Amino acid sequence: MAQYVFAVDLGGTTVKLGLFDSEGNVLDKWEIVTRKENNGEKILPDIAKSIQDKAAEKSIAKEDILGVGIGVPGPVDSKGTIYKAANLGWDVFNVSETLGDLTGLPVKTGNDANVAALGEMWKGGGKGFNSIVAVTLGTGVGGGVIIEGKLVAGSTGAGGEIGHIHVEDNEKISCGCGKKGCLEQYASATGIARLANERLAQDDMPSVLRDADKIDAKAVFDAVKDGDRLAVEVAEIFGMYLGKGLAAVAAVVNPEAFVIGGGVSKAGDVLFEYIEKNYLKYAFHGTRNAKFCLATLGNDAGIYGAAKLILE
Amino acid sequence: MAQYVFAVDLGGTTVKLGLFDSEGNVLDKWEIVTRKENNGEKILPDIAKSIQDKAAEKSIAKEDILGVGIGVPGPVDSKGTIYKAANLGWDVFNVSETLGDLTGLPVKTGNDANVAALGEMWKGGGKGFNSIVAVTLGTGVGGGVIIEGKLVAGSTGAGGEIGHIHVEDNEKISCGCGKKGCLEQYASATGIARLANERLAQDDMPSVLRDADKIDAKAVFDAVKDGDRLAVEVAEIFGMYLGKGLAAVAAVVNPEAFVIGGGVSKAGDVLFEYIEKNYLKYAFHGTRNAKFCLATLGNDAGIYGAAKLILE
Repeated sequence: MAQYVFAVDLGGTTVKLGLFDSEGNVLDKWEIVTRKENNGEKILPDIAKSIQDKAAEKSIAKEDILGVGIGVPGPVDSKGTIYKAANLGWDVFNVSETLGDLTGLPVKTGNDANVAALGEMWKGGGKGFNSIVAVTLGTGVGGGVIIEGKLVAGSTGAGGEIGHIHVEDNEKISCGCGKKGCLEQYASATGIARLANERLAQDDMPSVLRDADKIDAKAVFDAVKDGDRLAVEVAEIFGMYLGKGLAAVAAVVNPEAFVIGGGVSKAGDVLFEYIEKNYLKYAFHGTRNAKFCLATLGNDAGIYGAAKLILE
Repeated sequence: MAQYVFAVDLGGTTVKLGLFDSEGNVLDKWEIVTRKENNGEKILPDIAKSIQDKAAEKSIAKEDILGVGIGVPGPVDSKGTIYKAANLGWDVFNVSETLGDLTGLPVKTGNDANVAALGEMWKGGGKGFNSIVAVTLGTGVGGGVIIEGKLVAGSTGAGGEIGHIHVEDNEKISCGCGKKGCLEQYASATGIARLANERLAQDDMPSVLRDADKIDAKAVFDAVKDGDRLAVEVAEIFGMYLGKGLAAVAAVVNPEAFVIGGGVSKAGDVLFEYIEKNYLKYAFHGTRNAKFCLATLGNDAGIYGAAKLILE
């Protein structure tokens, strides 16, 4: 008898959904709009309806559905309670219970970055490992910690918030979180652009970045690949902060591998030169064996991870 | 039918053993000498014999023994493989398998600091919590990370090595691990003594510490309790480093509580004034709710935790 899992990746604009078989193969993928009006009260009913419609369309009986996994954009503890999701207008409530009541199905909920990490370990860049830390270098720096196949959600859903590890004592500018000197201020796409602009302003060293339309992480790492000296200096600073932060992470959970994703990771293997060398500079000897790999699932990591919440 | 667990806390000088019932009550405690000659080849046979003798003495049948839990002084992964224990003369091998063969009983093995953490959560300062980080402030700074009741051993046994989180960029002196600026260099008993000596040498500020027979962590915190201004400054520096380090830990695993043990913790609640305030200065807002408590089991934490390895 075939069995199925529904996977949901809830974003601020769209909800990605996936239908999986019990082997973890994607049978279908689709999207619906995230309706945020009235504090997002329609979001979970919309998702429940979309799941029921799909089950009807595919003639899948309720008893053949193992459950629904969902990743949501906010801190979620291991019981499925979300501690506010400002982006959706949501306050504190139990997502697993609410969506469970709406669908009549078992539901498991995780934070979106954590769930994507689980996806990457299952079917992506972290495949073959059992304990990884996924590092998302995007607008901010996110993380997902997986130990022996299980997500570390954190007691109040803040597990894997590695972008807010303090790595610089002399920072003058505040991070979005209100603190000063967070990893995110240097290793995110935004942080890299800032490091580049600061370096450019420092003196007149020639650099292709001076003629770039836009100073962003892509421009910096393209310049690094072309051997641009100033861009290489920026990459070194980025690598120093990220290496320092990941060494701290390793001293806590000693993962087998770090899986690097997010927009910045599109730069590819060139990143590792700067991250690994600096990681080794700060890492405790017992954690030096950690591997570094690139995330490979892109925007699908969320639904893979959500399916895995049920199939684990 | 009564069931039993044997618990072993293997140290460099003595082996502490305990006999527990399946409810976690200690029925007996005893010690044997750790015989380290010939690369510690006698240690596990000695332990096996001591367990068998005790079972015979108490007329406990083999089928009524649930298993043997053991904490060992070195990095151990979740499968029971130890990655060298220089202190015992041991190289890499699987402790659980070896002691299992010797006793004919199921064996679970953990790193001693990690196992003590498990003990503290089960029956000590961390009782009632499910996810804690135990922090041992002794000669060095050790740690044990427990997430939802399970130890995070680490992929090569280096989980919880929080004493080697980098917290100071400007350190000139090397840590025992070879790096510079590790948390252990400031927050251990040794580190506190050093901070005090450095502060005393800095100027002529009066302090009771100038007349102390010995400048150690106890003398510093005794002076703090008496309102000694210089000692308070030292405590602030200690708290700043420890707060910074624990904030990094919290950004990774977001525990419910930190349980502070080791020799330095004998100073008592006065420590929290300096740790908590500084923790809040560096902690990501989603992790600010962490509780701070004192370890309470002292030298018995190891056997409690070892018993819990089997009873979990």
